[in-house]
Amino acid sequence: MKICVLPGDGIGPEITAEAVRVLNALDLKFEMETALLGGGAVDATGNPYPEATQKLAREADAVLLGAVGGPQWDSLPREQRPERGLLGIRKDLNLFANLRPAILYPELANASTLKPEVVAGLDILIVRELTGDIYFGQPRGVREENGERVGFNTMVYSESEIRRIGHVAFQAAQKRNKKLCSVDKMNVLECTQLWRDVMIEIAHDYPDVELSHMLVDNAAMQLVKAPKQFDVMVTGNMFGDILSDEASMLTGSIGMLPSASLDDKNKGLYEPSHGSAPDIAGKGVANPLATILSAAMMLRYTFGLEEQALRVENAVKKVLAQGYRTGDIYERGTNKVGTKEMGDVVLAEL
Amino acid sequence: MKICVLPGDGIGPEITAEAVRVLNALDLKFEMETALLGGGAVDATGNPYPEATQKLAREADAVLLGAVGGPQWDSLPREQRPERGLLGIRKDLNLFANLRPAILYPELANASTLKPEVVAGLDILIVRELTGDIYFGQPRGVREENGERVGFNTMVYSESEIRRIGHVAFQAAQKRNKKLCSVDKMNVLECTQLWRDVMIEIAHDYPDVELSHMLVDNAAMQLVKAPKQFDVMVTGNMFGDILSDEASMLTGSIGMLPSASLDDKNKGLYEPSHGSAPDIAGKGVANPLATILSAAMMLRYTFGLEEQALRVENAVKKVLAQGYRTGDIYERGTNKVGTKEMGDVVLAEL
Ligand SMILES: CC(C)[C@H](C(=O)O)[C@@H](O)C(=O)O
Ligand SMILES: CC(C)[C@H](C(=O)O)[C@@H](O)C(=O)O
Repeated sequence: MKICVLPGDGIGPEITAEAVRVLNALDLKFEMETALLGGGAVDATGNPYPEATQKLAREADAVLLGAVGGPQWDSLPREQRPERGLLGIRKDLNLFANLRPAILYPELANASTLKPEVVAGLDILIVRELTGDIYFGQPRGVREENGERVGFNTMVYSESEIRRIGHVAFQAAQKRNKKLCSVDKMNVLECTQLWRDVMIEIAHDYPDVELSHMLVDNAAMQLVKAPKQFDVMVTGNMFGDILSDEASMLTGSIGMLPSASLDDKNKGLYEPSHGSAPDIAGKGVANPLATILSAAMMLRYTFGLEEQALRVENAVKKVLAQGYRTGDIYERGTNKVGTKEMGDVVLAEL
Repeated sequence: MKICVLPGDGIGPEITAEAVRVLNALDLKFEMETALLGGGAVDATGNPYPEATQKLAREADAVLLGAVGGPQWDSLPREQRPERGLLGIRKDLNLFANLRPAILYPELANASTLKPEVVAGLDILIVRELTGDIYFGQPRGVREENGERVGFNTMVYSESEIRRIGHVAFQAAQKRNKKLCSVDKMNVLECTQLWRDVMIEIAHDYPDVELSHMLVDNAAMQLVKAPKQFDVMVTGNMFGDILSDEASMLTGSIGMLPSASLDDKNKGLYEPSHGSAPDIAGKGVANPLATILSAAMMLRYTFGLEEQALRVENAVKKVLAQGYRTGDIYERGTNKVGTKEMGDVVLAEL
């Protein structure tokens, strides 16, 4: 069980350190090796996804990532920006299935900007296709035409790409409340008409799952209006980027939300849904729980260790119930702790 | 002052009727002619934007539209679906600037699913580019490749397209709180990198406006987290479709939100932000206020009749203050009225 640890930038090193402590506490004999990704990798090697990292990541069974990016790298040329490292590793490892739960923990209901009755008990799983779509489509670029610049990108999906993410989503729905909502913009985009057609085709393999379809603009509305109507949502890379972030923010506690990005053999990259938070980096105040919960997803999806995954998730629930909070989820009457202390109390509960 | 009235489908005829009554009550000698668009047009002529409508719409100074679409046309071939009529008229009349206010009326604060302190006083203007982007980009379609179907669309923007919507947005910001947030996905899409570059270039013409940039995924989050941080937002057609719907729903009263789609000479198409609501069509219960407020936008933008626009808007505010509510915005203790009665009380206040 080889894990490649990529602390990344900003708060990345602090939060992955806690997740690593949690993994080690399980006594499962993981082999872990650490490498560079993102801004730090650019600084050290000129490449946001350096070859040494590629080698380690390919050999590992799973990758644990902190977060990448920061203002100091924003003005670098495109190919050297930290997020190219992220896109690079996703594509290189063929991590086409991004699972992003949006869960509102009862203890944190107040953190949401939505009314409690609208979000209490929220538990959505967004399945986002992660290696296709306009993110990687060719042709792309900026060309001269009639004496002016013209920018262009290509949204593209093949049947087989849609089918494989569809199966992941249907199977996820089977393990949950058996409702799958596929999001597209079929009334405008032929590419997403194909998306819808293929979803309908594979639905025949899952008679126990209720498939519905929603246009992306309506989905953006319905997430605000009545988010609890959703169980599993599946969509393409671009719409998934937008909707999964919107859905996370419904909880108000994005510092709690993990994610998994899987290939077709359950090799996965696991990372918190939040960013690198450069403003609080190095201060020891970041919330490590999303990363710890990402490690739990790793136990479940890559290593098939469901019991251990639950053990970690339950430890997190307990520390919340005990009132421990990092600054991002703090409210009066709870016990404010730093990154390391939060790791400590989770470890104590394991 | 020629107005082409397109009642459209579903509740369209009922709500436009009230807006027409309001316009007529102003004694401004409008010439109005009615034509078909959308599903009704398909049924009658086979074309969702028939030639007769094209002629009238081109000759008119402004177009007042109800709404188009309904389940009975969903299975028609692409070219005959009601929304093709909408896309067709937008493109035909070169209505590149879509203005979508998201305003929360104090009387309707409860309608929002967000906490009152998060949305009270919300007043955002979204400026969405409406005739470019992946909506109209070529090439597009579904092709066979390696024995499977591949769907594709093209996101494309030229410098001049970005510049002209940019100017509209900066000028709108100048008339408001002088803050403009341009939304893109420059970290992934070259097309939107050009978008950002051009916005930065034209910002020099508007030293009094504070320009900021936000990635679309973050924008979708920030609208939920702290929507009042925004004054004017400007973005492309696709992102604008998603974000403007998300923003409208923050108010919880989408039945109150008008929109304007303008060309470069202030010819415009005015329509409510909501859809054709087939479920309540013909029942006389739909909320006509978004359409009436769209007529007010017409008075302001196309006809330069600011005072008359305010007169209509104030009448709407008064009827809200008096407690009149259609079903969609009804709450206990207010006075529930139907479509026509709502028109009556607005007329009485004019
Ligand atoms: C950093 C960026 C390229 C990335 C994406 O757009 O996929 C991020 O927003 C995410 O969702 O993981
Ligand atoms: C009906 C559809 C084509 C249209 C769009 O996507 O532009 C609608 O959603 C809108 O926003 O006016």
